[in-house]
Amino acid sequence: MSAISPIVIIVGTNRPNSMSRRVAEYYQKLLIQSNTSSTILDLVDLPHDFTVTALYGNSGKNEAFNSLKSHIDGAEKFIFIIPEYNGSYPGVLKAFIDGLPYPNSFTNKKAALVGLSSNMHGAIVALSHMNDIFSYLGMNTLALRVKLAQIQSHFVDNEITNPLYKELLEIQAEQIIRF
Amino acid sequence: MSAISPIVIIVGTNRPNSMSRRVAEYYQKLLIQSNTSSTILDLVDLPHDFTVTALYGNSGKNEAFNSLKSHIDGAEKFIFIIPEYNGSYPGVLKAFIDGLPYPNSFTNKKAALVGLSSNMHGAIVALSHMNDIFSYLGMNTLALRVKLAQIQSHFVDNEITNPLYKELLEIQAEQIIRF
Amino acid sequence: MSAISPIVIIVGTNRPNSMSRRVAEYYQKLLIQSNTSSTILDLVDLPHDFTVTALYGNSGKNEAFNSLKSHIDGAEKFIFIIPEYNGSYPGVLKAFIDGLPYPNSFTNKKAALVGLSSNMHGAIVALSHMNDIFSYLGMNTLALRVKLAQIQSHFVDNEITNPLYKELLEIQAEQIIRF
Amino acid sequence: MSAISPIVIIVGTNRPNSMSRRVAEYYQKLLIQSNTSSTILDLVDLPHDFTVTALYGNSGKNEAFNSLKSHIDGAEKFIFIIPEYNGSYPGVLKAFIDGLPYPNSFTNKKAALVGLSSNMHGAIVALSHMNDIFSYLGMNTLALRVKLAQIQSHFVDNEITNPLYKELLEIQAEQIIRF
Repeated sequence: MSAISPIVIIVGTNRPNSMSRRVAEYYQKLLIQSNTSSTILDLVDLPHDFTVTALYGNSGKNEAFNSLKSHIDGAEKFIFIIPEYNGSYPGVLKAFIDGLPYPNSFTNKKAALVGLSSNMHGAIVALSHMNDIFSYLGMNTLALRVKLAQIQSHFVDNEITNPLYKELLEIQAEQIIRF
Repeated sequence: MSAISPIVIIVGTNRPNSMSRRVAEYYQKLLIQSNTSSTILDLVDLPHDFTVTALYGNSGKNEAFNSLKSHIDGAEKFIFIIPEYNGSYPGVLKAFIDGLPYPNSFTNKKAALVGLSSNMHGAIVALSHMNDIFSYLGMNTLALRVKLAQIQSHFVDNEITNPLYKELLEIQAEQIIRF
Repeated sequence: MSAISPIVIIVGTNRPNSMSRRVAEYYQKLLIQSNTSSTILDLVDLPHDFTVTALYGNSGKNEAFNSLKSHIDGAEKFIFIIPEYNGSYPGVLKAFIDGLPYPNSFTNKKAALVGLSSNMHGAIVALSHMNDIFSYLGMNTLALRVKLAQIQSHFVDNEITNPLYKELLEIQAEQIIRF
Repeated sequence: MSAISPIVIIVGTNRPNSMSRRVAEYYQKLLIQSNTSSTILDLVDLPHDFTVTALYGNSGKNEAFNSLKSHIDGAEKFIFIIPEYNGSYPGVLKAFIDGLPYPNSFTNKKAALVGLSSNMHGAIVALSHMNDIFSYLGMNTLALRVKLAQIQSHFVDNEITNPLYKELLEIQAEQIIRF
């Protein structure tokens, strides 16, 4: 490859104006500080009917879905911002993955996981589940899973106000750049 | 309640004419043999745009989704037929759960889990993940998770041909009836 | 059986004078309030060399181990108090289980899980792992996993000082009695 | 460091003459073929009373345990051979980890996981649990978890007879060398 492809930061929910989106934008700023280019892929941009028009027999037939897919195909590294929904990852994030071709989309690529929740757990179980999926798909995942618990209290005016959270995200950003 | 509500058998994918659907119908026959009524809720009947029109700010606003939801509300016991997709449960199944009101939909109810896969693992990891979700939601889940590995070889002409699979499903059916 | 066997509360570590032991004693008081008898099985009482003298070829040969085992054999319901060690359950707790005969020790019995940790997570991942084990062993486990995070701040003078923790333990105690 | 430290292959059980030991020796041959030095750390060499004399207040005080520990301290990369015991990893393996100092023993190091079982699952759930632990400890773990199901049928005369198993182990060996 003649150039390093940008890191793709995936907003792991299709909720409009999600907290995950704002965390993704914060993460992008961290990467800029390390002179690393990135793009944000927000699942809010999924076609509304993708669970029918882009899966199973219709795999590959939805142009809007394919456009999102092309961002995955062109990238080597990913940051997944994953809010906790019902004790695991959002179903929509997994349905998006279920619509991507297996096994080439993520195999031999690299991922970093960030969880967020309003409760005390920071989506820790969701990140465990997602790591199992990435293991299945052959994508190496950083050991450091950053868990942003009680996110509303620690993310104000688009800034992380909790010093530990800030430090962990900075460490993880450096790790994924060098991974 | 003046009568026992039927057990709801959930086909855990929206794939048309799925193997999971056929296993659900087989399970229903087992329940009939034990004089237990059931209904099948097939996620193929989800509205195509439910991940947008039935979640988040639109929760409760999609009548077709609400119709499926009413089957959950009226039931006390569930059989989940869960195919393995990408090393976990189908995203669509979780997105369906994400569209249901928390915490009343499943709290203090009871579930039995059946996994199926074309590989050797019978969705064993998917069932572990799903059990975490049901724990979060407060639904007691039978210890006996039936794992139907290599389902194509063991389910022919709508019958389970593997005697062990047959026995495990019968044991589980009896357990969920008495649970 | 002519009488209901006491619930066994298992202290899931062999650490001397453990916090888990104190939580077990607190739990026993809750059960007494509900007129339910219980015994405490503290893993501190494991023979020091049990990982050699009570496992594999030596299974059943260690009398001190067998004495603990007999408490398991005679019980139908269990409370497991599980501290978080290195992001999962204590190895000693699992080694104890590995020394018990399979599959009769826990099959068709019932368990409730309590996690504790000094961090914010309350051993939530440890409880998920342990539920997988109990599913494998055929023991039904209550959906309600009580997670006592930052236990040092919420357990003072042998009393739970956090009202939510107190309420959750009381709810769980009632559930395991009726389970 | 002036030289690359050998990879440590950990036999994840203290069972004498274990199948895991034999798989470890097979793995060592694979590494030799790639001109990579390794040592085998077999948990059968744990002091019999290590769960008391090397944990908690006695951490660091057992010389025989410390000798095993020094192999961990000096290494950067590990292969874990993990048999399935009761639906998860062996308790003894976790108790060994519980006796190592946190967080320096594994932080920023690298691991590959191999599971084995007599059943069809190849310790897949055990490997998921162990990956959670290594994530907690800050050790990056290869996505490729090799699962050697029904090991007795596929490992004869100290050779892997299943071509797929052989290929997966070779791929993993190359990956951990380059990781």
